Formats: sequence, structure tokens, C-alpha cells
Amino acid sequence: MNPLSSSSSAAPNRSPTLAEAPGAGPISITDREATRQARYQQVGQRPGTLNIREGALKPRLFLVSYNDEVCAEDEYTDRYDDLLEHLRQHPELKHWIDVRGYGDLPLMERLMQDFGLHPLQMEDVLNDYQRAKIEVFDDHRLFMVSRMTDFTALLEIDDDQLSIFTGPNYVLTFQDDYDDCLDTLRVRIRANFSTLRRHPSLYLAYALTDVVLDHYYPTMAAIGDYIEELEEAIFADKRPRRLLNRILRIKKDVVRFRRLVYPERDKIAEILRLPEEIMPETLKIFYRDAYDHAIQALDLAESYRDNISSLTDLYLSDQSNRMNEVMKVLTIISTIFIPLSFVVGLYGMNFQRHDDHGHFLAFNMPELYSPWGYPMVLGIMALVVGTQLYYFYRKGWLTNR
Amino acid sequence: MNPLSSSSSAAPNRSPTLAEAPGAGPISITDREATRQARYQQVGQRPGTLNIREGALKPRLFLVSYNDEVCAEDEYTDRYDDLLEHLRQHPELKHWIDVRGYGDLPLMERLMQDFGLHPLQMEDVLNDYQRAKIEVFDDHRLFMVSRMTDFTALLEIDDDQLSIFTGPNYVLTFQDDYDDCLDTLRVRIRANFSTLRRHPSLYLAYALTDVVLDHYYPTMAAIGDYIEELEEAIFADKRPRRLLNRILRIKKDVVRFRRLVYPERDKIAEILRLPEEIMPETLKIFYRDAYDHAIQALDLAESYRDNISSLTDLYLSDQSNRMNEVMKVLTIISTIFIPLSFVVGLYGMNFQRHDDHGHFLAFNMPELYSPWGYPMVLGIMALVVGTQLYYFYRKGWLTNR
Amino acid sequence: MNPLSSSSSAAPNRSPTLAEAPGAGPISITDREATRQARYQQVGQRPGTLNIREGALKPRLFLVSYNDEVCAEDEYTDRYDDLLEHLRQHPELKHWIDVRGYGDLPLMERLMQDFGLHPLQMEDVLNDYQRAKIEVFDDHRLFMVSRMTDFTALLEIDDDQLSIFTGPNYVLTFQDDYDDCLDTLRVRIRANFSTLRRHPSLYLAYALTDVVLDHYYPTMAAIGDYIEELEEAIFADKRPRRLLNRILRIKKDVVRFRRLVYPERDKIAEILRLPEEIMPETLKIFYRDAYDHAIQALDLAESYRDNISSLTDLYLSDQSNRMNEVMKVLTIISTIFIPLSFVVGLYGMNFQRHDDHGHFLAFNMPELYSPWGYPMVLGIMALVVGTQLYYFYRKGWLTNR
Amino acid sequence: MNPLSSSSSAAPNRSPTLAEAPGAGPISITDREATRQARYQQVGQRPGTLNIREGALKPRLFLVSYNDEVCAEDEYTDRYDDLLEHLRQHPELKHWIDVRGYGDLPLMERLMQDFGLHPLQMEDVLNDYQRAKIEVFDDHRLFMVSRMTDFTALLEIDDDQLSIFTGPNYVLTFQDDYDDCLDTLRVRIRANFSTLRRHPSLYLAYALTDVVLDHYYPTMAAIGDYIEELEEAIFADKRPRRLLNRILRIKKDVVRFRRLVYPERDKIAEILRLPEEIMPETLKIFYRDAYDHAIQALDLAESYRDNISSLTDLYLSDQSNRMNEVMKVLTIISTIFIPLSFVVGLYGMNFQRHDDHGHFLAFNMPELYSPWGYPMVLGIMALVVGTQLYYFYRKGWLTNR
Amino acid sequence: MNPLSSSSSAAPNRSPTLAEAPGAGPISITDREATRQARYQQVGQRPGTLNIREGALKPRLFLVSYNDEVCAEDEYTDRYDDLLEHLRQHPELKHWIDVRGYGDLPLMERLMQDFGLHPLQMEDVLNDYQRAKIEVFDDHRLFMVSRMTDFTALLEIDDDQLSIFTGPNYVLTFQDDYDDCLDTLRVRIRANFSTLRRHPSLYLAYALTDVVLDHYYPTMAAIGDYIEELEEAIFADKRPRRLLNRILRIKKDVVRFRRLVYPERDKIAEILRLPEEIMPETLKIFYRDAYDHAIQALDLAESYRDNISSLTDLYLSDQSNRMNEVMKVLTIISTIFIPLSFVVGLYGMNFQRHDDHGHFLAFNMPELYSPWGYPMVLGIMALVVGTQLYYFYRKGWLTNR
Repeated sequence: MNPLSSSSSAAPNRSPTLAEAPGAGPISITDREATRQARYQQVGQRPGTLNIREGALKPRLFLVSYNDEVCAEDEYTDRYDDLLEHLRQHPELKHWIDVRGYGDLPLMERLMQDFGLHPLQMEDVLNDYQRAKIEVFDDHRLFMVSRMTDFTALLEIDDDQLSIFTGPNYVLTFQDDYDDCLDTLRVRIRANFSTLRRHPSLYLAYALTDVVLDHYYPTMAAIGDYIEELEEAIFADKRPRRLLNRILRIKKDVVRFRRLVYPERDKIAEILRLPEEIMPETLKIFYRDAYDHAIQALDLAESYRDNISSLTDLYLSDQSNRMNEVMKVLTIISTIFIPLSFVVGLYGMNFQRHDDHGHFLAFNMPELYSPWGYPMVLGIMALVVGTQLYYFYRKGWLTNR
Repeated sequence: MNPLSSSSSAAPNRSPTLAEAPGAGPISITDREATRQARYQQVGQRPGTLNIREGALKPRLFLVSYNDEVCAEDEYTDRYDDLLEHLRQHPELKHWIDVRGYGDLPLMERLMQDFGLHPLQMEDVLNDYQRAKIEVFDDHRLFMVSRMTDFTALLEIDDDQLSIFTGPNYVLTFQDDYDDCLDTLRVRIRANFSTLRRHPSLYLAYALTDVVLDHYYPTMAAIGDYIEELEEAIFADKRPRRLLNRILRIKKDVVRFRRLVYPERDKIAEILRLPEEIMPETLKIFYRDAYDHAIQALDLAESYRDNISSLTDLYLSDQSNRMNEVMKVLTIISTIFIPLSFVVGLYGMNFQRHDDHGHFLAFNMPELYSPWGYPMVLGIMALVVGTQLYYFYRKGWLTNR
Repeated sequence: MNPLSSSSSAAPNRSPTLAEAPGAGPISITDREATRQARYQQVGQRPGTLNIREGALKPRLFLVSYNDEVCAEDEYTDRYDDLLEHLRQHPELKHWIDVRGYGDLPLMERLMQDFGLHPLQMEDVLNDYQRAKIEVFDDHRLFMVSRMTDFTALLEIDDDQLSIFTGPNYVLTFQDDYDDCLDTLRVRIRANFSTLRRHPSLYLAYALTDVVLDHYYPTMAAIGDYIEELEEAIFADKRPRRLLNRILRIKKDVVRFRRLVYPERDKIAEILRLPEEIMPETLKIFYRDAYDHAIQALDLAESYRDNISSLTDLYLSDQSNRMNEVMKVLTIISTIFIPLSFVVGLYGMNFQRHDDHGHFLAFNMPELYSPWGYPMVLGIMALVVGTQLYYFYRKGWLTNR
Repeated sequence: MNPLSSSSSAAPNRSPTLAEAPGAGPISITDREATRQARYQQVGQRPGTLNIREGALKPRLFLVSYNDEVCAEDEYTDRYDDLLEHLRQHPELKHWIDVRGYGDLPLMERLMQDFGLHPLQMEDVLNDYQRAKIEVFDDHRLFMVSRMTDFTALLEIDDDQLSIFTGPNYVLTFQDDYDDCLDTLRVRIRANFSTLRRHPSLYLAYALTDVVLDHYYPTMAAIGDYIEELEEAIFADKRPRRLLNRILRIKKDVVRFRRLVYPERDKIAEILRLPEEIMPETLKIFYRDAYDHAIQALDLAESYRDNISSLTDLYLSDQSNRMNEVMKVLTIISTIFIPLSFVVGLYGMNFQRHDDHGHFLAFNMPELYSPWGYPMVLGIMALVVGTQLYYFYRKGWLTNR
Repeated sequence: MNPLSSSSSAAPNRSPTLAEAPGAGPISITDREATRQARYQQVGQRPGTLNIREGALKPRLFLVSYNDEVCAEDEYTDRYDDLLEHLRQHPELKHWIDVRGYGDLPLMERLMQDFGLHPLQMEDVLNDYQRAKIEVFDDHRLFMVSRMTDFTALLEIDDDQLSIFTGPNYVLTFQDDYDDCLDTLRVRIRANFSTLRRHPSLYLAYALTDVVLDHYYPTMAAIGDYIEELEEAIFADKRPRRLLNRILRIKKDVVRFRRLVYPERDKIAEILRLPEEIMPETLKIFYRDAYDHAIQALDLAESYRDNISSLTDLYLSDQSNRMNEVMKVLTIISTIFIPLSFVVGLYGMNFQRHDDHGHFLAFNMPELYSPWGYPMVLGIMALVVGTQLYYFYRKGWLTNR
């Protein structure tokens, strides 16, 4: 039994297809998420006041205790005191206290006091919409915020906050959901000869940051796949509805993704500038690697943004092409038949061969009385049509483009 | 009785709806506010000359005196001397002198002298359009300007200036309106065990800045709601009038909001760089939190700006879609009937079966004398129409994209 | 008598109206001013060579001598030696030597030598197109360039150069026009208890800079008014001619204004960084205020630029709306009458009831021989029209969006 | 025999022509490469874990040993131990160990240990998508990454990674392909009096970097040629299909190229800042030259980007021109024939000369009974057509623009 | 006789007119120059290898020797040894050795050795496409690159490189053409009391830089004139062909010009930062003036870029206006005649007054048998036309906008 792995394991990132998405809800390009965040903010409250957001999940507590020889995992939900007791009894082990869900204010306050967290930082944890950042306590402990991303079937970047506090021999993490993207890390801890278990607990904080960073790539790959699908949809005979909405929507997502990753990069850059006594050089080598990854993720996002803006151009040009096609059909039909209609109208005129007094009027439409009149008119009309068709063919209007 | 709360309490921020707004006045995208500001500036006056803007309200004076044990509030309008006397008698208390309305030049000059304010700063207070900023007096007192925002029913960002002077045991604030967004703060002062009452008066200045900052979120939320409404309106059958105006108008608002918040962020960054003796580290922790909030407000504004630019794209694309629809109707009708008209014109020609001499002309329109001529022509026309409809159906012109 | 005030006092800034402007000349969006400047530059000349631009006005010399007790003004045009004598006799006074017009090379060279100006700086004065800047002499004297702006009836930003040299007890200014925007300052000098008269002459240099800066606001207000007028013109039934030209033209002006103000801001920022012995702290307080003003002028210019770019969007969208309207009229008329024309053409066919042999052809257009044929056809056509009108009404094509 | 030159020598860069490209595959503007990279990233793995990408080629080992007198080359594929032995025996020579292909994990790990490479760096080598960068070992050895570019017939920038490790008397390079662009360098080594052979091995690392940099120019030239071809295609009578796709595609390539070169430039700038003991001044002179080249390559890329954006404008304008032409044809035909059709319809009306009772109706269409009626109508129609044609000619609608 | 002035003196900059330009060659917007440069780069060569570009002119050598008393000029083409001898004999004079044309590799190598130039710098000279830059030798000599511009009749910015080496008492310049823009400088040297002759030879290097900078203005003025011409062409009845090409082409030129001037500005800024012993303060004053000029040239280029982007907007809007006009003509003609055609068609129907059995059918088109039928129909049609014309007039469709 493994009480630590997330109960319903997170589904792998998969790009939602065009076919699924419409059923999944209306496609809005406006940033409802942003509006929601704006609305959550408490106005005029004392800074550092703890508020549990409505609908927050009941906290579950997980503990992994390990060193290079042993590794024990257990769930301590509703047994917070046992957890503290366990920590006290095993100062020789490294501990990962993993809190999932915020829905219990007293527990949150006990955690804050027992682990010496600042109310403003605890507020940041619960507020749950913080940019990635790092803060250093006076006693060299660290508070880090990372944002875990996911590209959901609703075509939305879903981002959850992972708050990390480090201590001398423990790492304390908070997240508001039971599922997360950290299972690969749990597997690595369990592995017998894992480097993770040999390094100090500060390395675990790094590993958490790194796993979150690694997860940006599947998110981006899902977006990339979706962009390719959109490109194909533009030229499809049957375009999906509101295609431009979809394009602008995914653009919004990419822009949002960039805005998530920028602070992440800045955070790591700040870590690299920390003095040796807070962040030893041996760990910084790893953060330097993470920094490269963050830069690459930003590069990818730039790439995608360029792609999407090209998509918009393509869409609009294709739009105008389709309009052109409509116009061409209209022009061809009109241009062919309007002169013909004139000709047949011409010979539908009623000019008379005799006036009211019976005088013969030789100049009034003698064609109508010619034996070959009708066939000749038909022939002339055929000639006109032929000439026009040839002209249109030369212009390339009969073929596509 | 509570003399300090604003007489007519400010209505909560609510997004004006599309339905209301038009009645509220013409929708102009030009920045009349900016033009008005440009016009207010006095040309060539000696800097530091105090000018009371026309129509300024009569000043009302409010005083809150508090420490961790007592808290007394009173209105001192027209009793400025009593107020000074009260301040002199209670050096052990912290005081918040709250001046609302500028319409009394002598009073303003007395305040300037009694509290040792620089004429240029007093001019900034009365001028009433200053970017957020902080200035430090030689004696370590501070002068801070914040801008309080509101999203009015007129779809305008309304921003009022809050000028804050700090002293050893008092905070002196100026604003030009009787209503403000500081009531939540007044409630916190009255609360018995408020942190606010334990901290020195400098903390009150922070709290004022923070409350103003907090109020940016409802403003943004109102704008966000309005943007969503606009998006829906684009695709509505009956678009509201001058929809693009509205979109560009709200864009202007967001841009203006960003321009309000940028100096606010810079102000706080400057506060964080102040030396310890002016701004103690214990307060800076709170400002660091406020800094995060300012950054987030800017992030939100960025988000909205992207959304609005996407809205413009959508609007224009929808515009062109509607045009396409018109063209398609024209094309379908023309393409169907123009050939038919030719056919019926053809058989309306008057080619004769006999020439002027009575000779029989066998080639002239024998169809007209065939027993099945008319039904066959009708049949042919039905066939042509059928073929065309099938072609249009395949092209997808009969359905809506 | 007041010999110092400009002979024909500068008209107050007033926004040229749409009605006036066209008569005032062709509306060009290209920057002829820039091209002209480019052409003025002398190629390959020794730097520091003085050149009097063709058409330069004959210099007029004005002198204001003042201290906190006395204030004397006089015009010394053509009496340069008297002026020097006067300066020598009154070392206890502060002097403002005001040179208007450059059209006298020997005088310019005498001024250069008598006041110890560098040839390169004198060249800058006469060249008359310099960005705002400040240069410090070795002996701590200053050379400052400001640009005075005006929004002319030709819809052009007119900018003149004000060159300022400071000395121990004098300020020497150059400008190429007899009119200027400094009259308000002259009034302040004459005023009995003016601060200006108590401060050292360096303060006069500040006051000149500040007055120029203040004049940016009326210029901006005039532009703002004109932008509002343009917005209204977009939706007017009778648009003025070449409306887009006008919009792009005013955009050019705003861009140019920004380019004027940026160096002004940088100049003041540089002044603020000057060491105490060159620029005392007591004066810097005033420059700090001027700096705020420059920032605000830039803010305004940003605002306007955004507005104008929105105007362009509106213009183009309205353009396309008008096109749509044309298309709709065409579509409605065509769609209604084309089917009707078919019907009437149908019954204009000449299918015969009897063939050449007199046989009765019962199927050939029996409708023509029915007693109610004509009324029924009229009725059917009325029905078709009614249906179509209803359809268009539902689509909203009969009303204006 | 020369075992070191690449088996199938890389074809010279040649711009793919418009004619070839379509056959080469679909033209996608989305950055599939980016998506692929995003997908390659291993999620949650321990940093520094070596992974051999699927399909990696079997490594081939080449060695060039040289000093200013001798130069020996040999292939050591599958003879790694011999290679090590050779290195040990010849400490007096400079060595270039050239590893092509990664498909052998044990060999890679032996190389890592034998040459003292850091696992994270080795991971960067194998990961094969790293931005250009430089890292300095504690013992002053260098790790450099360069990206070799090629513009393939698929209209894609193909970029391969060249990883360079320097040691006291050797340079160790890794690349994943057997072909490369370094043959010119191999020729220079073989040349008898080559500077390369006199300089220390660090110069070889420079030369490698420089050759890669030099190869950017043919890539750019190929892109430049292709852009010119595209411009001609825009105005061609028969545009290739999906021309806008091609334009946007090449834009993507240029943008990607810039993103490749920027880090290259930064890398060189970082090298220039290295202390003397790591990078001697005599070598820096050469890097300064390389820096100029990198800047110029960026300049070129900027140029191309501007060109491509102009191409897009041209394409869209030409698109709209073609639409205009269609409209003009429609207008000319309709405008000429619609009035004529009215005239002939007019005289096709059946107003009778006698009513039901045989009364003569003199006003009903007397024209039909006039002897010159028909010729006159024909004449009038000719006049109308003539007038219209003249009007169109004046408008310039009959000629092209 | 004056052997130094360029044989065929450079024609003054003159804006090519629209009329000339087309004959001068096809108007391409792509940057063929850039592609050519990209192609010139030698791949994989040893850095510092001298290559003479194909078609390089045979070098001509000119020498000006001067001090404040004497000034001698001579041409030393093919007499390089005499030149060296002359230099050796006159160490008391300042010398300007002016090399025009590179087409003689041995001579170039002798120059390199005799004047102690670095091979990399000599390569820069011959390579002939270098950004403006400055490099300082160890012995404080300078190597400067300037770019001389010209706006040719082909609508292209033509830029040649001027490479300047300074020595203790000489200046050595290289350029690849016999003509240049330095004649004004030669005239100044010959002038008797020229400042140039009194200053040390380093001043000559400044003067050369300054003359090149001065020449940017005529180039810009020519571009400015051309832009004005383009603006007029947009609204001309007969637009020149491919007008948008021309606009985009000139945009490319301006962008290229900016890219030329930016490094020039940076170069001068770098000169201003040189230590006193390399660049004395007395010379820096002049460079400060040159810096102002460079900034102004950039300002001008910015102005032009804005203008051109406005031109593009105007062009596209005018394009769409012309389309609108076409549509309006179509609409007016169609709308007037389509209803009329219906009416005349109506009365062309053949409904009979008697059925097959001779019964009178009173309802079938009695209008045809009315005595005033025809005049009334004509009257009704005139009324319809009148109403429509009035409607169109009100809409403003009959007038131009």
C-alpha cells in the first residue's frame, strides 16, 4: 500500500481535440480566470488575515521520512499531533510534510505557529494566486512559490500553486488540490539508491521546483498539438464554428503561460544570487540547469505566440479568399448572362413592320424575318460565352487561385 | 453616532451594463479627462502658488485619535482651532486628521503652516492630478500620493487623489471628495484589538496605501465583467450601437488604469529602498506584500489589455462575416435567377415563322411551336436551379459556415 | 510704457477647427519640417562656424535689470554698447538680456566674445534646431536649450528654440522670433514682491524653463480638443475631406511633441544630478516639481497617441460600415426584383397555342389564357416581396444595425 | 585516404525553389519542431540522468592529432581504448576528439568519466536542444554549445548542436549527425603552415565556433534568395498555392534563426568577459571579430524580418487588388448592359394601339410604329455604351490601375 | 592642378523622382544588398585572411601633407615607395594618406606591415561591410570605421565604408571607390587659416567622421522629398504602378539608414568615454557636437519611419475608397434600372384578353388597353428614378464622399 500517491492519479496531459472542446463549454476569449481572481481579493482587510476560500478542500496530511537508508511514508490526515510527535522523535531523518487542501482554518493556524511561518506568507499560501517567488527568512529558511500548470480539456491553462517552506531537516509543502504532478518525485524518493535521499532536505525543495518546471513541457506540447490542429482547421472545407475565437483563446493561454514562467525564471535567477550560506554552490549547479529549462520554456512560448499570430493572419486571409470566391462566382455568372439577356431582350422588342396606316417599315428589325435569324443569334451568343470563358480561364478565375 | 464615516457611503463597485451605459451619455473614445487636465494647468504662475479649483467642496475636518486602549472620533468642520488644541493636549495619542474638500484657501494655508508642509507639496495636493509618488522631508516625515480608483456607470475610470503627510504621532490626509473608499479602515481602527492601534502612526499611512491598493481589484473586476459582456454583444443578433466605440473606450480605461498603477508600484519600490531610520524593516515587510499586490494588479491589467485587443479582432472579423453573409445572399439569388431570366428572355424573342413575303422560316424558334415546349423549358429551369442549389450546398453557402 | 513685452503679443493657443483648417493649406502627413531641417544642415563645414539662416530677423535687444527693490526694463536694439555699459555700471543688479532675432552676424560674434560663449554653443543657438539639453561650462555657468511649442491653425506643432546662458548675475537668452510665451514671466518680474526678484539670477533660468514647460499644456489641450472634433467628424453624415489624413497628421504632431518633451525631461533629470556647487539644493526642489510636470506632459502625449490610434481603428471600421450599407441596398433591391423579373419574363415567352399546322397545343402556357392569370401572378409577386422584406427585417438589414 | 572527412559530405546550402518545395511536403506554419522538443523533455527525472534519444546514430570516433610539425588523422570507431592509449602516448600533441552520434550509452558514460565531464553537462550534450552557451569548469576547462544551421529543401532551418569541451591539450566535440559543416576546418588543419597548428588547442575551440558562425551566412543567403523568389511570386499571374503560408513559414524560420543567434552573441560576449587566465587576450582579439560577425548576422536577420513583414503587406494588398479587378469587371459589364436591357425591355412591352373596342390609342408606344424606330433605338444604345466606356476610361477602370 | 579632388566629383544628392525611378530598374522590396553581403562572407577561412573582392578597383594613392604653414597635395598611385620616402623625410608635417580602391593584394599587405595594422582589422577594411566602430591599439592608435551614405536614383541607400587609421602624425584612410563625399574637407585643408591645419592629426580623423555624419542630412532630405512625392502620388488620379512597393521600398531604406546610424552614434559615445590620454578633452568637445548630430539624424529617421507607416495606412484606405467608389457606381446603376426592368418586363407579359374559346378576360392586363397606359408607365418610372436619385443624393453617394 502506498498512502502517499495521489488517490486519483492525475491524467496525463493530452491535447483536447477540436471535436471535444465545443461540447465542453462556450469558447470565451476573455480572461474569466483573471476577473475571478480580481474578485477574490479582500478589500481593506488587515494584511496577514487568514481567509479560507469558500469550497476549499479538507486538508489531507502526508509525511515522507527518509534518509539514505530508510524511507517511510504515511498519511496523517486528522492526526496532526501524531505527525508532530513523529517529527520530534526522528530528528535524524529528512521529512516532507505534504499538506493538500486548505479547508481547515484552525489547522492552518497551528501549522503557521508550529513551523514559525509569517502571517503574510501564510496568507500568500491560502490566497492561492501568487506569482512564483522566493523569500528568505531571517534564519535562512526559504519560502518558495511555484505554479503547476496543466492544459485542460476546456482549452484552459489550469494553474495550481505549490507553496514550499524549507526547514533544517524538513520541507513543508501546501497545495489546494488532492491531485498533483509530483508523483514522479515520490517514486524517485522510494527508489533505493536515489540521489535525492542522500542530499540534504534543501535538495528536495529543488527537486520539487524542478518537477514543476519539467511539467511545463507537456503543457506546452499539448498547446503545440492544438495549434497544429487549428492550422489544419483553417483550410478545412467545414471550418469548426467560431474558429477565430479558438485561435484567440489559445493565444490568451500562451500569453498567460508566459506570464507564469517569467516570474519562475526570475525566482531561479534570484536563487542563483543567494549567498553561499543560504544556498550552497553544489545546489546552485542544479538551479543553473533549471534556469536553462525556464529559458527554454519561455523560448517555446515565444515560438507559439508567433505561430498563433501567423494563424490569425492566415485565418483572415483565408476569410477574404472565401469572399473572393463568392464574388468570382457572382461575377462569372453575371458577366456571362447579362449580355445574353440583353441580346434576347433586343429581339423581344415589338417594333412593327407596318405602321398604323399599313406602310411597310423595312428598317424595323428585319432580323426577325430572316430565315437564319434565330440560329445566328444562338450562334453569336455561343461565341460571346466562349470568349468570356476563355478570358476568365486566362485570368485564372475558373481554377482555384 | 459615527461622525467619521462618509455621509453618503460610496456605492459598491458594480459593472455598468450595456443597457444602462448608452443612456448615461455619449460614448467617446477620446480622453476628455486628459484634455481637461491639460487645460487646468496654470501657465506661467510662480511654482508653489496655491490655487483652489473652481467648484471645490467646502473642507470638512475629521479626527480619529487612538492608541491601543482608547479610540475617539469627531468632526471638527469649522472648528480648526479646537482640533489644534486637541492635538496639543493629547501628544500621547496617535491622530488621523482627515481633510475632505479643498474649497477654503485660508484654511489650506493655515494647515500648510501649522503642519510645516512645503508650498510645492501643498500645490500638489490642491492641483489634484499627481501621479502616485513619495517624497521625504528633511526631518524624515513623508509625503505620499495615492490614487483611488472607481469604475463608474459612465464606463470611466474615476480616480481621486489621496494625499498623505506623516508626522511623529499623526497622519494628515487630503482628498477632494466627501466620499471615499477608506471606510473599511475606519472600521478596523474602531475594532478593539486591531493591530492598527498597536502600531505607530506610520503604520496608518501604510494601511491607507494598502486599502487604496486593495480597491484596485473591484475596479478591475468591474472592468472584467464589462469586457465579458462586450464579447457576448459581438455575437448577439442585435448588436448595441457603436460597439467598437465601447470596446475602444474600455481599452482606454484599462490603459489609463495601468498608467495609474505603474507609479504606485514604483512608489512602493522606492519605499522599500528607504533607509531603516525612515522606514523600519518591520513595516517594510508589509510594503513588500503591497508590492506583490501592485504587480498582480498590473498583471491583471495586462491580461485585460490582451483580451480587449482580441475583442477588436473578433469584432472586425465578425463585421466581415456579416458582410460575407450579405454577399452570399446576393450571389445565391443572382446566380439562380440570372440564367433563368436569360432562358425566359430567349423564348420571348419575336423571331417570325414567316418572312414579309409569307415564306415559311423553319429554323426560327421551332421550340415555340412544339407541343411540349413550355413544360420542357420549365423542366430545364428546374434542373438548373436544382444543380445550383446542390453546388451551393456543397460549398456550404446555404448553411451558416 | 513697457518696452519689453512682445510687440504683437502671442495669441492664446486655440484649437484650429475642422472648418478653418482646410482653407489653411493642404493637409500633408509627411514631416516637411523634418525634411527642411535636414536640408538646412551645412555639409562639411568646420564645426563652430556661425551661419545666419536666410530670412533671420534683425535682432532686438531687451534688458530687464532687477533686484528685490528695483526693476527697470528697456529696449537696447541698435544700442549694444549702451547695454554693455549699463551692465558694467550695475553689478549689484540681476540682469536678463533678451535677444530676439539672429539676423546680424557681427552682433552675434560680439555677444559670443563679450559673454565668453563657445563657438559650438553659439552655433547651436543660431542653428535653431537643437533638442532640449544642458551643458555646463568649466566655470559652472550653464547653457540650456528649451523648445517652446505652439499648436498653430495649420494643425502643426510650431516649436521655437529658447537658448539660455547663465552668468554670475545675469541670464542671456536667445530666440529667433519677436513673439514668445514669456510675457507671464515678465509680469511676474514687474510685480513688487515677486519671489523671482529675491532669488539669485539662476532662479530666473529655472523660471524660464518652467514657463516653457507650462506652455506645453495649452498646446496639448488644443490638440485634445481637435482630437475630440475629429472623433465627432468620423460619424458625421458629411465627413470632411481626407479625414484620415487629418487623423494621421495629428498623430504625427503628437509623436513630434513627445519627441520634443523627452529631451526636456532628460535635461531636467540631468539638472537634478548636477553637484551642489553648480545647482544648489534649494533650486533643485523646484526642478523636481518641473520634472513631475514633464512626466505628466509625456503621460498626456501617451494618452493622446492611444486615442488617435483608436480613432484610426474607428475610421476604418466606419469606412467598412458605410461600404456594408451600400452593399445592403444593392442586395435588397437585387434580391427583391431579380425573381420578379424572372416571373414577368416567364409570361413574356411566346410559346404558341397552335403549331404551324394549326394543332392546338394545350400545355403551352395555359396560364396566359386563364381569366385570373394576371391578378394571380401579381398576387404571387406581392407574396414573394412580402416574404423577402420580412426576412430582411428579421436579419436587421432594413434598420441601421 | 582521409578517414576524418564526413563520409557523405554535406551538400552546399542551396535555396529550395518554389517549384521543389510543395512536393517536399505540406507547408505548415506551426512550429512542429518546437512541439517535438517540448515533447522530448523527460518529466520528473533526476537532473543529470543520461537518456539516449530513440533513433540516435551509433557513435563514430575520429581523432586528429597535430602540432606545428605533424598532423595525423584516424577513425577510432569501436576502438575507444586505442584512442585513450594514443592520447596517453602523445601528450606533446594537440588532439581533436570528434564524436559523431550518441547511440551508445555505455560509451557516453565512459567518455563522461574519462574526460571528467559533469553529468548535467553530459545531459545537455545528449538532450541536443540547448541554446548556445558557455560554462567554465573549476579547473578552467570550458564547455561550449554552438548551434550549426542549415536551410533545408523543406524550407526549414535545420539546426544541430555542436558541444565542445576543452582540455589542456585536447578538444572534445559531440554532434548527433555524421555530416557537418566542419570540413573546411579539417582542411585548414591538414594545411602545412596553418596558424591553427601553431596555436594551443584552445584556439581550435575558437576555430570551431567561428566556422559554425561563418555557416550562418550561407543559411541566410539561401533564405534571402527564397524571399526574393516569394516577392516575385506575389505578382506572378499564376501564384503558387498557399503563398501566404510560405511567407509566414519563412518568417517563422527567420524568427527562429534570430533566436538561435542571440544566445550565440551572448555566449561570445561572455567569453570576452572571461578573466585572462581562462581566455588569454591573444585569443580574445579573435572572439571580438567573431562578435562582430554575430552582430552582423543578427542585423541580417532583422533585415529579413522587415522584408517578410513587407511581403505580407504586399500580398494582402495584391489580394485586395485582385478582388478590385473582379469587382471592376462585374461593374463594367453590369453598368453597360443593365440600362440597355431596360431599353430593350421597354420596347418589348405590349401596350396596344387599339383597346378592346377597337378605339385607336395614339399614345401607346408610337415609337414601335415609326419607320426609324429600331435604328434609332440601336443608335441611342450605342451612344449610351460609348458614353459609359468613355467615363470608365477616364476613371482608369479599363486600364490596369 | 589639384590631384586630390576626386576625378569625377560626386553629384550632389538629389531625390530621384517617381518618373525616373521605374526606368531605373524593377522595384524590389527585398533587401538584395543584405543577401549579397551574406553571400560574400567566406566560410571557414582562417580569420584575418585577406581577400580582394572580385571587381575591386585598382588602388589610387593620394597624400596631403600640411601644417599651419604649408600644404602640399600629390597623387602617388603606383609610387608607393616614393610616398613612404616622403613620409620619412617630413616628420614635422601632418599627413593624410588616402587609399581609394582595394584591387592590389600585395600593396594592401605592404600597407598593413608598414603601418602596423592587425590582419583582422585589415580584413575589416577589405571586407567592406562593417558597422561603424572604433578599436584602440595598444599604442593608443585608433581604428575607426564610418559609413558614407548616398540616396541613389535607384531609390537605394548606397553606403560605402570609410576606414580610418590614426598614427602619431598621420591619418590613413581606405575606401573602395574613387568618388567620395570628402571634397569639402579637402577644400578646408587647402584654406590658409583653417583650424584643421593648426590642430594635431587626430583632429583630421574627427573632421573625417564629422563630414561623413554631415552627409547623412542630404541623404535624409532626399528621402524626405521622395516621401512627399509618394504621398501626392497616392491621391493622384493616375497612380504610378506598384505604388505600395515603392512605399515599402523606401521604408526599407529608412530602416537600413537607422541601422547605419545607430552604430555611428554608439561609436561616438564610445569615443567620448575614451581616457584623456587617448582622446584629449579639447577634441571631445567636438565629438560631443557630433553626438548631438547623430542623435538628430536618428530622430529624423524615426520621423520618416512614422511618416511611411502613415503612408501605408493612407494607401490602403485610399485603395478601399476606390473600391467603394466602384461599388457605389454599380449600386446606383443597378438600383435604378433593376426596378425599371421589372416594370417593363411586367407589361411585356403575354396575358391574353380572350381565352382559347374566345371568352373575354377582363382582368388580364387591362392597362395595356388603356389610352394613357404607356405615358403613365413612363411617368411612374420617371418618378421611381427621381425618388432614388434623391435618396442617393441625400446619402451623399452622388458626390464624392
